[in-house]
Amino acid sequence: MFRGLSAFPLTPTGEHGIDTAAYTALVARLAAAGVDSIGALGSTGGYAYLTREQRAHTARAAVEAADGVPVVVGIGALRTSHVLELAEDAQKAGASGVLLAPMTYQPLTEDEVFGLYEDVTRELSVPLCVYDNPGTTHVRFTDELHGRIAQLPNIGSIKIPGVPEDPRGAERRVDALRALIPGTVTIGVSGDWTAARGLNAGCDAWYSVLGGTFPRTALALTRAARDGRAGEAAELSAGLEPLWALFRRHGSLRVMSAAASHLGLTDEPNLPRPLRGLDGTARREVVAALDALGLTS
Amino acid sequence: MFRGLSAFPLTPTGEHGIDTAAYTALVARLAAAGVDSIGALGSTGGYAYLTREQRAHTARAAVEAADGVPVVVGIGALRTSHVLELAEDAQKAGASGVLLAPMTYQPLTEDEVFGLYEDVTRELSVPLCVYDNPGTTHVRFTDELHGRIAQLPNIGSIKIPGVPEDPRGAERRVDALRALIPGTVTIGVSGDWTAARGLNAGCDAWYSVLGGTFPRTALALTRAARDGRAGEAAELSAGLEPLWALFRRHGSLRVMSAAASHLGLTDEPNLPRPLRGLDGTARREVVAALDALGLTS
Repeated sequence: MFRGLSAFPLTPTGEHGIDTAAYTALVARLAAAGVDSIGALGSTGGYAYLTREQRAHTARAAVEAADGVPVVVGIGALRTSHVLELAEDAQKAGASGVLLAPMTYQPLTEDEVFGLYEDVTRELSVPLCVYDNPGTTHVRFTDELHGRIAQLPNIGSIKIPGVPEDPRGAERRVDALRALIPGTVTIGVSGDWTAARGLNAGCDAWYSVLGGTFPRTALALTRAARDGRAGEAAELSAGLEPLWALFRRHGSLRVMSAAASHLGLTDEPNLPRPLRGLDGTARREVVAALDALGLTS
Repeated sequence: MFRGLSAFPLTPTGEHGIDTAAYTALVARLAAAGVDSIGALGSTGGYAYLTREQRAHTARAAVEAADGVPVVVGIGALRTSHVLELAEDAQKAGASGVLLAPMTYQPLTEDEVFGLYEDVTRELSVPLCVYDNPGTTHVRFTDELHGRIAQLPNIGSIKIPGVPEDPRGAERRVDALRALIPGTVTIGVSGDWTAARGLNAGCDAWYSVLGGTFPRTALALTRAARDGRAGEAAELSAGLEPLWALFRRHGSLRVMSAAASHLGLTDEPNLPRPLRGLDGTARREVVAALDALGLTS
């Protein structure tokens, strides 16, 4: 399950709640395109902004709409006891796996981060993907900490942030982590603009924001890389650079939010406040990039 | 209300919930010592880890135990609609003011931070203290942003992080901010080890972690500074350096957690996981510092 393209859809959320019909259609679209797994309630899915009840509802909707494609559900919360409740809800909803970022308010020590994964994996009956996302959690995982956590029961994968720019550096980064974790634990890359480099360097999976709204484009890149056509994967990624530049400037969530509403896949607003959608120039740049890439048809 | 010593107590929280009896006693102790206000459910009060129901319960308990001393209640949450619910609960509980940090998961733009305060102050009937705490929120307030927010209705104070080390630099920092905000908005310092410098530089208030457990010590320092005895305030602060060093190393929350349980004011654990109390060497250092300062009797 933690291999190939894992696509992370938005959870369209206005001030009046979640638009379940739009969400179901987004998930069904991913399943129809043939993604390898669906990452429900990831960062792109806005898990951090939703209540327990909304998250349980969304997890159930995702599993139903996924039509047999494995669904990985984000269970992150600031407090361990809340994470455990969310894990229970996700499993009841039929999740094939769970995704856990160490959310922080008070900065956590390494032992506290380890303790979180220890407390949670002990209670799980599905595999867990460790979600290393310093941009949102401000936790800096060392490879040694990844190594300790990867020995825990039920760890299935590690979702790493982007890999270094040069292909050799990317390979060294993946190899260094691989040497510290059991062979059963996969490594998946995120930071979409580094995905081709990560996959070409040996990552098993791409945890993809782009794939949550544009699954065919993300699948083409993933398959090229996983089938050994490294140059083709790199070229596909280079072609997407106008979009990657917008991801880096505005955050991939806001760009996909604008794209999804432009394509009519969701209403507006589709992000919960205090987050705001892009407007003015930024919005026009997203639309122009999608047009240039043929992603609006 | 946003002047003098504002004392921030712990909310003793074990795996089975909040210890209301211990909390009530902590708050009553602050009121009896004569603090100027009580900061319930601040960062030290673990607001980010509690449910809406727990926070409403804690706010009510604080107002009751404060016996007429103004209570400022923390209403921070990741989502604006949740902040609005918490503001309503705090006001119903009898809060004299509210404290709002721009919690983040997705990094926020300046306009999003401003929009949060705009959306919330519009609905308030008590004054709000803007809580600038980059260590937990990772939001970097510019003085220009503070200036924009301070023009909104119902803004009563700004809680700034520590001031620069040299007294002149501290004065410049406070003066620069003061020039951009209305005269009705007070400035309060936090980062306890910089409190004497901040008060001596003209801050109106000390938003104090130390004061939440050791109100008499914090009051002596506050009164010296506010009465113009700057040298005495600086000396009192210098005497507390062993404790400040531990605050900087372990976080003030963990140090006050260890102190409160050592003094028998709370059971253990008193922090919600994934946070862990200090143990071993760190715990012994806290006890030794308290002993040396005469704070254990």
